[in-house]
Order: sequence, then structure tokens, then C-alpha cells
Amino acid sequence: MGLRKITRGGGSAIARIVGNTTKNFPNDFDPTVRMWVFDEIVGGEKLSDIINTRHENVKYLPGKSIPDNVVAVPDLIESCEDSNILVFVVPHQFVRKICHQLEGKLGSDVQAISLIKGLAAPYAEKLGGVKLISDEIKEILNIEVSVLMGANLAHEVANDSFCEATIGCKKKAQYGPLLKKLFNSDNFRINVVEDAHTVELCGALKNVVACAAGFTDGLGYGDNTKAAVIRLGLLEITKFVEYYYPGSNLSTFFESCGIADLITTCYGGRNRKVCEAYAKTGKSLAELEKELLHGQSAQGPLTADEVYFMTQRSGVSDMFPLFTAVHRICRGEMKPSDMISCLRSHPEQV
Amino acid sequence: MGLRKITRGGGSAIARIVGNTTKNFPNDFDPTVRMWVFDEIVGGEKLSDIINTRHENVKYLPGKSIPDNVVAVPDLIESCEDSNILVFVVPHQFVRKICHQLEGKLGSDVQAISLIKGLAAPYAEKLGGVKLISDEIKEILNIEVSVLMGANLAHEVANDSFCEATIGCKKKAQYGPLLKKLFNSDNFRINVVEDAHTVELCGALKNVVACAAGFTDGLGYGDNTKAAVIRLGLLEITKFVEYYYPGSNLSTFFESCGIADLITTCYGGRNRKVCEAYAKTGKSLAELEKELLHGQSAQGPLTADEVYFMTQRSGVSDMFPLFTAVHRICRGEMKPSDMISCLRSHPEQV
Repeated sequence: MGLRKITRGGGSAIARIVGNTTKNFPNDFDPTVRMWVFDEIVGGEKLSDIINTRHENVKYLPGKSIPDNVVAVPDLIESCEDSNILVFVVPHQFVRKICHQLEGKLGSDVQAISLIKGLAAPYAEKLGGVKLISDEIKEILNIEVSVLMGANLAHEVANDSFCEATIGCKKKAQYGPLLKKLFNSDNFRINVVEDAHTVELCGALKNVVACAAGFTDGLGYGDNTKAAVIRLGLLEITKFVEYYYPGSNLSTFFESCGIADLITTCYGGRNRKVCEAYAKTGKSLAELEKELLHGQSAQGPLTADEVYFMTQRSGVSDMFPLFTAVHRICRGEMKPSDMISCLRSHPEQV
Repeated sequence: MGLRKITRGGGSAIARIVGNTTKNFPNDFDPTVRMWVFDEIVGGEKLSDIINTRHENVKYLPGKSIPDNVVAVPDLIESCEDSNILVFVVPHQFVRKICHQLEGKLGSDVQAISLIKGLAAPYAEKLGGVKLISDEIKEILNIEVSVLMGANLAHEVANDSFCEATIGCKKKAQYGPLLKKLFNSDNFRINVVEDAHTVELCGALKNVVACAAGFTDGLGYGDNTKAAVIRLGLLEITKFVEYYYPGSNLSTFFESCGIADLITTCYGGRNRKVCEAYAKTGKSLAELEKELLHGQSAQGPLTADEVYFMTQRSGVSDMFPLFTAVHRICRGEMKPSDMISCLRSHPEQV
């Protein structure tokens, strides 16, 4: 394989991994990994300068060293120049803008892999269907786009705690082995599957289920109830995928991107946390994001809105009572305690 | 339907449920539910007398009232006389003895439902295969035996926390509706499936996976690692079921008895708890059961032994590295920390 360079913004946890794998496989990868950093001033210094001198992202991943072959680059175009693999790890609302900036600036033989969990629904109305973020990137840049999802809460990945992840790659035979090499390590075990749509939708929809789990946690229910939420949520995910992408493979749900990520997110994720507090305190979601997530946003309520927009438009909201209830509770149209009656009357209990 | 009576020993949490459902459906069930209680003296009184006067199992479920139509009966034969449905909720080592005592003493038109989670492996050698507890009951008593499994930790069921459960009933059309009626309530939602072997094996094998989850918890790993344990464990369960009972239905794993129970058990169950302490303290399992479980035993290490006996005999232990590792760690032949290398080299990571 020719040289490979990695460009990304955010996700220093992943930069630590690819920094090491690219060192380990010098025949496959250029040793320098360029990381696009949206620059900001931290303690009087530029964040990119701090990363390049101290090899630590003191703002977003303090205390964890980043390999010295990872170079922070504040200019987007420069960070991608001559790169063959672009790794997307940015908040999903920036994807479109970033892609438009890169349009026409990339070399040939470029592929991307997206780690972004969400849907690109603001554009769904025009398209009459779900828009995946990978499809959005693909359409603007006209390159092959794979996805990486899985049970990997960032702070645990950064602690080198053992975990797994799934790469969804439609051209598995062609691109799978190299992508696996790029991310696979002793503590970050990769499986590659072809069913990329399912992988990506699992990553997006699990955040909606995690909101439901947060509500029941906040209401004081225990592990039994949470297991029921996870089970019914998983069934709605399978149904959603089957409805909008018929022919998906049931075995994909047994990959890390499926049940495993769903479990992790429903126990340790930030959507669960915010929604638990929402049920307990009655404060607004915006307020709780500020208080609990230090400025990061919870993706679940947004995704629930997008999913509701989709299912209502298709006339099938009733097929997804848990997703719909999360949307309504987040919007203040239902109480968190209504989640229990949603579970009780769920059509999967036949 | 004719009269139905329920006989069981232990599991007062379930007695609370069937006490109420039988009251609610007087056309289907005899209003009196007889509960066999292995009598013991508690504070100078017989436990059965306490239950029948104070309507509370002060020893095993203190603080929770038992409906007054549930009558504790200390004599096994008497408790089952004229009963049409026997509900088995006893430690699995007593099943054989109890069934032999009941042999020839039951009326016609009797069916049983087992809530016991485990395998009857001591008899496997003769049979050359796994022996299910339901099959053991069936063979001795010559009656139809269904099973009830699911994500229902007893203390949460007793608190009327919302949960789900799965009934596995081979003659679903004939017996399913009545069994559902007997257990289903607002807070205990029942699905009935025909794939009873899978339901029962999920109930038994999840305890082995929970041991693995306990080890990684005890070693200080987080939710990512636990999600990987649950995922790989689930895959071994599906493989085990398929190997010993070919033709099982993948959708059964999406019932409460499958993923949901596995999750609950790996987060809130006693096998997890004991194995976490085992990894942390190095004390013996027997000692930890005494300390942490107040005399109850952890089923997981026993089931792991039984599973290992089976898979080794069939020459397929290598297909089940997680199950095998749990067996070896519980036996002291491997260290709890070896669980991580087992996860790292698991054949499902392809």
C-alpha cells in the first residue's frame, strides 16, 4: 500500500491509537499522523502548540500522552493535504461545512472513515429518507466512506481499558484489512463487517435508547427495568434498520456496534446521565448539559427528534413507541414517568 | 379450564405475583395457592406458621407482604395434592429428590413450569449430552414442563419494579395462554415462545458469563470491557445452544431470557458480585459466598464446571474459550487477570 495519513479533528483518544498503529506498520502507513485541531487558546497558548510540544491535549484529554508522531494542524486543508485516509471525529453538525471546505482539495485514492454517531436528518426532508452521515460525506467528497462504531466510551479507551469496536466497510475485501490494521490493537479489538448501514445506525440510535434508560434510572427503577429498556430499544433499532435499509444482517447486532455499544451507553454514557438528571430534577436539558457535560452536547435528544421526524413522515411512528416516547419526553410533551407505561404496552410484548 | 393450584418451594417473590393473578382470574384458577415451604424455625416459630399468620416470609423476603390466598404447606406431597400446575423454584440440587418423592402421587392433567437456572449435568455422563432441568422433571414425573426465565432479579421483582420475563413452552398453543395469565402483570410482562430449550439454556449459561464480568469488574476494568464480555459470552451461548440443540431460533436471544437477563445478571447479580470479590481479594469462592450471599450459593461456577464437563467430553472446549476460562479461574487453574487475554484472543474477533 502507498502512504497513508490520517486527518481528524477531536477524539484524541483515537489519535493515541492510530499514532501507535501507524508506527507499528511503517510499510503500510506514513509515520506522521496529522490531526486537525480547531484551535483555541488554553492558558494563553494555542491548543495546537501545546499538543505539538507537550504531546497532550490538555483541554479534552488531560493526563494522557499522545504519541509524538501525531501532529496537530490548525488548518483544515493543510491537515488533509496528500492524505489517503481521513478519519472523521467531529461533532456531527460540522460535517457538512467541513466537507464543503475540502471539496476539490483532496487527491485521488482517498477514503474516509467516520466515527461520528448521529443522523444527518436536517437534509432528510429533501431526500425523503434517513440520511446517514457517511452518505453525506460520500456525496460531497465523492469518496468511499466506512464507519467505526462500538462499545468504546472515550475515557476508558484513553485509559487503555480493553474494548472492542466494529468497522462497517462496504468494500470489505478491498479496504477492510488496511482499516483494521489502522485501528486494531491489544486493547482495541476490531471486527470488520460489510453491513455498514447497520453499523452506523446502531451507533446513532443507541443514544435514543440511552435516554430512555436514563429516565428509568432517574425514576429509581433498577437493573430489571433497564434490561427491558435495552431489549425493547434494541428491537426498535432492528426494526428501524430493517424498515429503512431492508436486508440488513441480524448478526451485525451481535457485533460490538450492536448490543455491546448499547449496553455501555445505557450504563456509562452521557445521554443516560443527562436524562437521569432530567427525570430527577426537572431542569431543562440545555441546563443539564452545561452542568454535567462541560459544554459537550447529548446526542440522544437530537437523534430522537430526527428519528421522530423520519418515522412520522413515513407514517410509522407507532412502530417505534420507545423512540417516540423519548422524543416527546425530551420535548416536554410527556413526563419521564410515562416511559413506564410505554414499556408496559410495548407491541413486542405479545 | 378446570381448577389450577400452584405448588412451589421458595421464591416468595413469585408467590406474590401468582397470588394476585389467581385472584384476578377466578374462572381459570383455584383462588388458593399452596406454597411448599421447607420448614425451619425462625425466632422460635415455624416459618410456615409465620407465613400463614403474618403473610410475610420474614426469613427470605422480609418486609414484603404475601397475598393471603398463598398458603404455606410444609409437607411436599400435601402441597401438591390435586394441583394442576406445579411451579418449581427450588435450588437445582434438590430437583431430583423432590421429583422422586412426588412420583406416582400426582393426578392426571398436571403440568409444571420451572424457574430454576442451571443444568442437571451430574447425569450427563450417562446420557452423552446436556441434561436440562426441565427434562429431568419431565422424565421422572412424566408431565409437560415449561420454563420461565428472564431479567428479573428477585429483590427488584419483590419491589414491583417493572420487568419482563420469557416463558418457553413447547406446546405454546395449548398451554401458553394459561401460563401467561398465571404470571403476567403490569410490572411483570410475559412473552411466550416455543423455543423452550433456548430459553432454559440462556437462563443457565448467563451465570457463567456473569462470573467473567465479575472478574473484569474486580480487576478494575470498566463498562467497555464488560460490554465485550457480555457480547462474547452471548455469542458463546448462541453457539452452545446451536451445538447441543441445533435449530434453535436466533430471535429467542432477543427475548427477556436472552440479552436482557444476561445484562441484568452481569450488572446486578450475585455471581458477578462473588467473582468481583474473588478477583479483588483472592479469598475462596466458598468463603465469599458465606460473606456476601448469606448462605445462598453462586450458580455460575457450578454451571461453568458442568459446561466444561460437557464441552470437553464432546471435544469442543476450544469453541468456548470464555466458558472454559471461567471454569479454570474458579478452579484456581488460571488467574482472574487471564480473562483479559482470553478476551483478546477470542475467535469471534476475526
